[in-house]
Amino acid sequence: MANESLARSTPYLAVDLGVLDRNVEAMAKLARDRGVSLRPHVKTHKCREIATRQTGAGAVGITVATTSEAEIFADAGFRDVFIAYPLWVDAARGARLRSLGERCALRIGVDSSEAVAALARNTSGRGDVEVLIEVDCGHHRTGVVPEAAGELAVAAARAGLGVRGVFTFPGHSYNPGGAERAAADEARALGQAAASFQSAGMECDVVSGGSTPTARFAAAGPINEIRPGSYVFNDAQQLELGTCAAGDIALTAVATVVSRSAGKVVLDAGGKVLGADRPAWATGYGRLADYPQARVCALSEHHATVEWPSSLALPELGAVLGVVPNHCCAAVNLADELLVVVDGAASVVWTVLARGANG
Amino acid sequence: MANESLARSTPYLAVDLGVLDRNVEAMAKLARDRGVSLRPHVKTHKCREIATRQTGAGAVGITVATTSEAEIFADAGFRDVFIAYPLWVDAARGARLRSLGERCALRIGVDSSEAVAALARNTSGRGDVEVLIEVDCGHHRTGVVPEAAGELAVAAARAGLGVRGVFTFPGHSYNPGGAERAAADEARALGQAAASFQSAGMECDVVSGGSTPTARFAAAGPINEIRPGSYVFNDAQQLELGTCAAGDIALTAVATVVSRSAGKVVLDAGGKVLGADRPAWATGYGRLADYPQARVCALSEHHATVEWPSSLALPELGAVLGVVPNHCCAAVNLADELLVVVDGAASVVWTVLARGANG
Repeated sequence: MANESLARSTPYLAVDLGVLDRNVEAMAKLARDRGVSLRPHVKTHKCREIATRQTGAGAVGITVATTSEAEIFADAGFRDVFIAYPLWVDAARGARLRSLGERCALRIGVDSSEAVAALARNTSGRGDVEVLIEVDCGHHRTGVVPEAAGELAVAAARAGLGVRGVFTFPGHSYNPGGAERAAADEARALGQAAASFQSAGMECDVVSGGSTPTARFAAAGPINEIRPGSYVFNDAQQLELGTCAAGDIALTAVATVVSRSAGKVVLDAGGKVLGADRPAWATGYGRLADYPQARVCALSEHHATVEWPSSLALPELGAVLGVVPNHCCAAVNLADELLVVVDGAASVVWTVLARGANG
Repeated sequence: MANESLARSTPYLAVDLGVLDRNVEAMAKLARDRGVSLRPHVKTHKCREIATRQTGAGAVGITVATTSEAEIFADAGFRDVFIAYPLWVDAARGARLRSLGERCALRIGVDSSEAVAALARNTSGRGDVEVLIEVDCGHHRTGVVPEAAGELAVAAARAGLGVRGVFTFPGHSYNPGGAERAAADEARALGQAAASFQSAGMECDVVSGGSTPTARFAAAGPINEIRPGSYVFNDAQQLELGTCAAGDIALTAVATVVSRSAGKVVLDAGGKVLGADRPAWATGYGRLADYPQARVCALSEHHATVEWPSSLALPELGAVLGVVPNHCCAAVNLADELLVVVDGAASVVWTVLARGANG
């Protein structure tokens, strides 16, 4: 266990395996209890070892955001992959998707008739490239209005594509107190989309919702698949949204106090380690794992400035502290590896296999 | 030139070599004209090819932020390296610094007597590990008050460290209209620090300032070295601060329109490509290279939502556009490579050699 090859200079990312495994199992149980399929989003962790745990716990397949993530996970042996993204498919991407379709069951998101036509044209309209129609349930980023899903499904089928169903991402669940309403929006929009399939004479096998904040509101109803991602690690966002408790956080940036002044310390983990995500409602750029009242009040590329609670003594220079990033997906995508900790001891290193796989 | 191996699926980062070379030469000329040494910060680009251009244009050495950046650039042949960071040096880092000190002229930042003692203890107090005292000139992140610099210099010398001078980072120059005042703060603080060396009977060879926004205000006076970084690429921050013109921007994220709705388009370059940095005064999460009125108004991991000027037709789905990141240093640190474009044609790929080198 005290393996010298596992010694790391700060800053680095550490994963508490016990917490991770508990989170993986809790979401698998939630999906079983609610009678929905679980297709976790692996953009969060980009690690083969974690995806393997998720499928081992009963996930029906994986969700990815990009073609290159799909390629990397297909090469790693995953056989059921959904690219939950409205790809624009030119000839080069079409060739990559055809190759992927030979290696795994592949689904792709679409949200326009133009994208359907481009996908069909550049994959020779093969029925084994299946699509899900993306609908907007209130996040207003991508997706058609729910009532238009059936019409687009018909267009996709006419273009020779296999149409499996509908999906949405309730991104507006990322607001304090907003998750339950977003989950209701999600269920309503997916229900309307499925109904519009029926009106158009199309079958709708898959009705897929997303997001860690809304997962706990998933209930019997139109939704039959969920795609949460962040739940494996959790982060300061999920904590401040009330989606998780402090004890459910599996990922921390391990950092050293390099400077101190009145009421604050500076750590050597900046935005290039933690990520710079900061929603308007967040209380800072991150939290301290063992000091609930401390806040990362300023962030540079290589410095996190922490406001220290006045009731506590400032930590010494050289003290090593755990920082909880605001957004685990962003932090992990900055790291080439994760140090896995078991019962407090460094155990093994996992490669962030799909780090930077955006293309 | 039309090399198939250079074909890339979007999103990816592209560098206009003509603009980059002009930026490199312009800053070198500014330093020559003002009679100050140029020691550019390579955390911005992390590329051997760009650092080589900078030293070729007259830079006296390079600045880095981390021990691992220093190691990577020393291995790449750079022989004069300043780690402009108040490192906390334990035994392991001390061994790395000693090894580095055998390969290059090495300077390290310090801002406390404790850090001086730890550095001396763990590098055996060797005179060839030289330090610069960091002073705070108004950014209030790290650094001692200017008047305390001489006292800390004496402590470092007594601990057996070579003391070369003082440095500061005027981070408060990153505010609209704030650069000139920050440059004045910088000069005043460095002058006070140099005077405190003299009072303490210490020599102060190096008086080093920083930052792309303040570089143009560097004038004869106490400062004899500048450490700008972002100027090689520039970015939306520098544009909105007025530090550069649109034609001075050398780095863009090349992205595809994947979705459209009334008045906006969604591009496939999100925060995992552009970085999520957004200062409060920025007009968005990035700019469009060819559409000055467009703004990235929302950013997810894999989506940039762009508010499109109402006077212009929306681009077609599948259109390929250039996005200017808010912060070039953050964007480059997300990419494994940069596609170098010469006169509009892909020419070569540069490896982001020190990507993720935070430790």
